[in-house]
Amino acid sequence: MRILITGGAGFVGARLAREILKRGQLNGQSVTELVIADLFPAPADLLADPRVKGHAGPMLEQGDLFKSGFDGVFHLASAVSGECELDFDLGLRSNVDSSRLLLDSIRASGKASRMVFASSVAVFGPDAANPMPALVADDGLPTPQTSYGTHKLMIEYMVADYTRKGYIDGRSARLMTVAVRPGKPNGAASSFFSGIIREPLAGTDTTCPVDASVSHPLSSPGTTIHGLITVFEASREAIGGRMALNLPGLNVTVGQMLAALEKVAGPAVRARVKFERDERIAGIVDNWAKGCTFERAHALGLRADASFEAIIEQYIEDCKTRPGYPAEALNGLA
Amino acid sequence: MRILITGGAGFVGARLAREILKRGQLNGQSVTELVIADLFPAPADLLADPRVKGHAGPMLEQGDLFKSGFDGVFHLASAVSGECELDFDLGLRSNVDSSRLLLDSIRASGKASRMVFASSVAVFGPDAANPMPALVADDGLPTPQTSYGTHKLMIEYMVADYTRKGYIDGRSARLMTVAVRPGKPNGAASSFFSGIIREPLAGTDTTCPVDASVSHPLSSPGTTIHGLITVFEASREAIGGRMALNLPGLNVTVGQMLAALEKVAGPAVRARVKFERDERIAGIVDNWAKGCTFERAHALGLRADASFEAIIEQYIEDCKTRPGYPAEALNGLA
Repeated sequence: MRILITGGAGFVGARLAREILKRGQLNGQSVTELVIADLFPAPADLLADPRVKGHAGPMLEQGDLFKSGFDGVFHLASAVSGECELDFDLGLRSNVDSSRLLLDSIRASGKASRMVFASSVAVFGPDAANPMPALVADDGLPTPQTSYGTHKLMIEYMVADYTRKGYIDGRSARLMTVAVRPGKPNGAASSFFSGIIREPLAGTDTTCPVDASVSHPLSSPGTTIHGLITVFEASREAIGGRMALNLPGLNVTVGQMLAALEKVAGPAVRARVKFERDERIAGIVDNWAKGCTFERAHALGLRADASFEAIIEQYIEDCKTRPGYPAEALNGLA
Repeated sequence: MRILITGGAGFVGARLAREILKRGQLNGQSVTELVIADLFPAPADLLADPRVKGHAGPMLEQGDLFKSGFDGVFHLASAVSGECELDFDLGLRSNVDSSRLLLDSIRASGKASRMVFASSVAVFGPDAANPMPALVADDGLPTPQTSYGTHKLMIEYMVADYTRKGYIDGRSARLMTVAVRPGKPNGAASSFFSGIIREPLAGTDTTCPVDASVSHPLSSPGTTIHGLITVFEASREAIGGRMALNLPGLNVTVGQMLAALEKVAGPAVRARVKFERDERIAGIVDNWAKGCTFERAHALGLRADASFEAIIEQYIEDCKTRPGYPAEALNGLA
């Protein structure tokens, strides 16, 4: 099998690539080539694997690559929420136009590749005529309140229509916010969901830009990647329709996250987080889902992380054992 | 006011243009220029009005025109459902790419034009995981089962996001199927909803490609145009949100339509319609809404046509009095 991961040099994409390389197969078929397309070069450990081919550069310049015929595609590349709010054109180019090029290229290849599109919980939001329920189901009405969410939703509908026509075998999975991410904060408005755990564990003071009562569905990187692979491997019948499904997340408040941090790492670590409201971030997050339900993912056997403590423990374990986690990541632990 | 109608040479667009010219104003402001952009030239009676400027040609070549600064825009231009199913690329170009150019051009003009986008009841459909309710409300989950419906929905979401950003003052109104249309059948899968009334009234035998039990929401051209103007003139508060609303339609079966035809025009006229199932058309129509509800339109004071008899009577009156209706249109009446 020849597999493509767009955004494969990013945190989720690179971890997905490592997992696929470790398994060596998808759906019982050997993965002989794994192509990583990303704006940035793939991490060295991935490029060192003889099965991996890296292609760095904008997706909009990769049409020939995308036409070259893949058995499977994971489409993760995206400009993130904060970026899209600050640069409207960049968002349209990086998300909508790039995804269209990818879909049209796969169609031109004639392979009808199986494709998982990484959509987002950001498709949901409250509109004046459509208040958002406390928990949003798979079939909740998407009324995105960011350009990022709008783009993800438009791509979901393209994936469904190209699939209906038989040009791809697509399935869209809405990722919950992935935490804990290593490294530096990024341009996503959700960046603080990782920061308020990562920074104090590294021994650094940090601020939380939203109130402790803010609730949101989160998923560990391991659980997220297990979800993406499960959705890829599922039969169309098991997926049950062309519309996107919610990948499982833990519906948790910021207050519960910090209580879990204190339980796992102690009160001194917890004390490194101060609340300092950022109106821009808080305004965006206010318009996100407080939580979701996951009926269709449950039917595929997928489950959310057991607890937020378990998510923190996965991060601590990752810091000790995985590439991409800086040496000082746990300097804040006694 | 300078007003643009895309698709303004089509049946609905030209009738909208005539109505605006007759009123001479929108929202109390005088209409000084009415620009009609359409693939085809506008009808002669419109071009004869000194306020009208016609631009014939593909929308994708009209970027400079669209950037020239409009106070109001009615965006009606579209490739229709049957065409989009037969030519996937044409659909994407004519609907998605053209609408994107229009939106980006208005944004570049800096005018934040008020804009009504003519979406369609075709955004609704049954998906494996999302069966369709008997009547679909404004906030029903759109799961389009045609490329046409997919494109309309993608544009709805673009209109909402460009509006959120303040680049336009957009509102999307989902047109129900408009009947009775004059002239020849067109490429729309819904064409027969007009044909089974129009052809027998003209004295021509015709076939109905779906069963008598098929139910669908219909609206007369007059009611549809009144809806578009009302949505244009409404305040943002009255519209209540950025999501699309359903324009009122009469939920009616093909059997009820033919019974109304017999009541208005007699059994000999009714007898000119034979049932001859067309699997391609029937398959598309099977995936359309059987009926809708219209809560948000009702709140704007809009109502569906009183009966299907009234819709037929409007058509007969139009044949006698309006441009664009052929002389032989009522040859079948005794």
